[in-house]
Amino acid sequence: MNLIDLIDKKKHGKPHTNEEINYIVSSYMTGSVSAAQVAAWLTAVSFKGMTVKETAYFTEALGNSGKVIDFGELSNKIVDKHSTGGVGDKVTITLIPLLAAAGVPVAKLADRGLGFAAGTVDKLESIPNLNTNLSTQAIVNQVKNINAVIASQADDLAPADKKMYALRSEIDAINSDVLLASSIISKKIASGASNIIIDVKYGSGAFMSTPEDAVNLSKLMVEVGKLLNKSITTIVTSMEEPLGRAVGNSLEVIEAIRFLKGEIVEGDLAELTYAIAVTVLLQMSLFDSGKEAETYLKSLVSSGKAIEKFRELIIAQGGAAEVLDNYDKFALPAYKVECESKKNGYVQNINAHSIALALKALGAARENDKKPIDLSVGVYLNKKSGEFVKKGEVLYTIYSNDEEATKTAQRFCDDAFSINESKPPYNSLIYKIISSKEEDEDV
Amino acid sequence: MNLIDLIDKKKHGKPHTNEEINYIVSSYMTGSVSAAQVAAWLTAVSFKGMTVKETAYFTEALGNSGKVIDFGELSNKIVDKHSTGGVGDKVTITLIPLLAAAGVPVAKLADRGLGFAAGTVDKLESIPNLNTNLSTQAIVNQVKNINAVIASQADDLAPADKKMYALRSEIDAINSDVLLASSIISKKIASGASNIIIDVKYGSGAFMSTPEDAVNLSKLMVEVGKLLNKSITTIVTSMEEPLGRAVGNSLEVIEAIRFLKGEIVEGDLAELTYAIAVTVLLQMSLFDSGKEAETYLKSLVSSGKAIEKFRELIIAQGGAAEVLDNYDKFALPAYKVECESKKNGYVQNINAHSIALALKALGAARENDKKPIDLSVGVYLNKKSGEFVKKGEVLYTIYSNDEEATKTAQRFCDDAFSINESKPPYNSLIYKIISSKEEDEDV
Repeated sequence: MNLIDLIDKKKHGKPHTNEEINYIVSSYMTGSVSAAQVAAWLTAVSFKGMTVKETAYFTEALGNSGKVIDFGELSNKIVDKHSTGGVGDKVTITLIPLLAAAGVPVAKLADRGLGFAAGTVDKLESIPNLNTNLSTQAIVNQVKNINAVIASQADDLAPADKKMYALRSEIDAINSDVLLASSIISKKIASGASNIIIDVKYGSGAFMSTPEDAVNLSKLMVEVGKLLNKSITTIVTSMEEPLGRAVGNSLEVIEAIRFLKGEIVEGDLAELTYAIAVTVLLQMSLFDSGKEAETYLKSLVSSGKAIEKFRELIIAQGGAAEVLDNYDKFALPAYKVECESKKNGYVQNINAHSIALALKALGAARENDKKPIDLSVGVYLNKKSGEFVKKGEVLYTIYSNDEEATKTAQRFCDDAFSINESKPPYNSLIYKIISSKEEDEDV
Repeated sequence: MNLIDLIDKKKHGKPHTNEEINYIVSSYMTGSVSAAQVAAWLTAVSFKGMTVKETAYFTEALGNSGKVIDFGELSNKIVDKHSTGGVGDKVTITLIPLLAAAGVPVAKLADRGLGFAAGTVDKLESIPNLNTNLSTQAIVNQVKNINAVIASQADDLAPADKKMYALRSEIDAINSDVLLASSIISKKIASGASNIIIDVKYGSGAFMSTPEDAVNLSKLMVEVGKLLNKSITTIVTSMEEPLGRAVGNSLEVIEAIRFLKGEIVEGDLAELTYAIAVTVLLQMSLFDSGKEAETYLKSLVSSGKAIEKFRELIIAQGGAAEVLDNYDKFALPAYKVECESKKNGYVQNINAHSIALALKALGAARENDKKPIDLSVGVYLNKKSGEFVKKGEVLYTIYSNDEEATKTAQRFCDDAFSINESKPPYNSLIYKIISSKEEDEDV
């Protein structure tokens, strides 16, 4: 077997065998084929695609390229949640303690942010001393002890996916359904989860621009999951505007804490957190109806069990749990600038991409691997879509450490808001939920 | 500018500007972009193509990436000939002395062989001591002195083409018209030729399989030439069967010598050599009619001027000119095996690809950069298409240094011949001649 023939095969749109896919992945890992050859193959894949079978072979080869976490007798219960990423998306931090409090063992292996969205690991590191670099054994032990862990994806888990992802970033081969799907699911193979819920976002602040694209990726992932014996459910959600009101690392953790304390009971963040949690409980057959499940989950918040689970998680990972009671323990920015609305009206939309650019200007997003990001800065959206704002009332607040950056961020934020007289219709951010069961019904 | 954006642009089939093309070539040469990125871009080009303009930009960037030979006052007269390569193709060796004897200054920069066809440089090296590694100055001087030179393409001429070609070989991006055209013409820009004739071959022993493919490549090259102020004529010829009777390095040079001495006056080798030479003389407006030009060229052979020009060239390049009179001065193989026909009939076809495989088995073709090739071995086709052979009569002769290899070569050669009772119709190997003038008329 040689890669030139396999590139040629893929250029002609022919499907690879399992052996061929394994050859590509393993020979790239051993270095017996060049990055240029794999780059050409990935480019051919981005033109010609792969079948569901090929995608499953590729996913498995990536997922089994390093260590695979073994949760022992818990194996077929472990839940992992993934989001394709969006602006202000702190749902991992609200969801994991909530599910763990409901008795579901959750092992979330998270990434640092790439591009304009900060990652969950970045966000959690705004809690002083919290450690996400856990050994495989520490991850297993923590799930057994407290039902929950949020750890960085270690280098020895799915190393082939890491190497392929870096190459894909280098050569503009990110935007391919089959490569996206295999990358996402391969990490879940390595993380040892059996029940996987994936939040596939579309819109101005997401990777996919239309709900149709998100649905296509979702269906592919569900199908691949079936071939790999993983129960995968996807929830297709809008990322036209930032999720919740806080965007920025510390600010988002504070918002998540407020949700877990029961201080935020409505709005998109609560809606999405409960929707995902309900989906998981139903997927695991723990409840008969969504309504019952939701009532139970809300009781975990109102009774304080959810926030106490988060406290357990922070303590287990060495973090300063006092942040839960005193937000001043988070790193504080130098400036807090309240920006006023220039007119009366209803907020129609807040462009997530523009807010992301504001965050980047403030230094909250990672520009490259070396430069550290500023965890203290961000934007708070005092008004969200559908809300009325008076001229002169605070529309948003900028948290910053640099006067010049504040001005730039302000320009992006002003651009982001569209305001006019008519009250916009309410649109749920949840577009569709796709599970293997529904897929079967569709077929 | 960055390459990721340019890869994305090409993936979407958008044309590059001259600046973008220059950026790609120059940043690959300086190493500021990775081979993987260029590989992805080349793969995108092989899917989406380039416009004639882009191809001209790319050709120019490659051609000007190193030294460009300056022939001074001869500049706009210099002729260079290129063949896309085929089995038994020794037309460079017959043509260059013939044209030079006709007073045309010819500077042929040749390659070593790659893949199954040996290159002109390999073939010439079968003449003891002949040196093709000439400095730019030596090339210019030799053309001024004797009108002819055949030199290796030096490393400092079009180095970007060399680097791109190596990468294309590595990633299966050879078979793309725009990349082929730009590679071929870029070398001619660096070699300082103004009048370029390109033999574009199709068939079992060539890179292009159909005449239509060869015509498309030809038209593209002619159009690119127009944008770059180079007069390019292409001659589209069949390579279904080997050219001439000799295949193998020394054997081919001997056949070329026999042509130049006037011992071979008919058949495909003579037909093609005269056709190309006539085309050049007409392209340079040295004759009014092809008939006149051909009569003149034939007189150069019959008067001995052609072979004397080749003698001058060999001597100028330090070679042992006595090979012209004594073929035993070439390296001799250990075995000469005459193989008989198993039946009576007319030769219908001799599959060039099968003969190439026989040559490879004998060690006459380069398998990689390191391994030297055996210049003494080869196959002589005692019968060619349209000729009658009796059962037991010699059909072909194998020249070999290895008994095992001889057997393998014999199997390939037996496969190559198809013989049956009916006399096949005569087909000229010349399919079409395409020049910029005709192209204008077509438009």
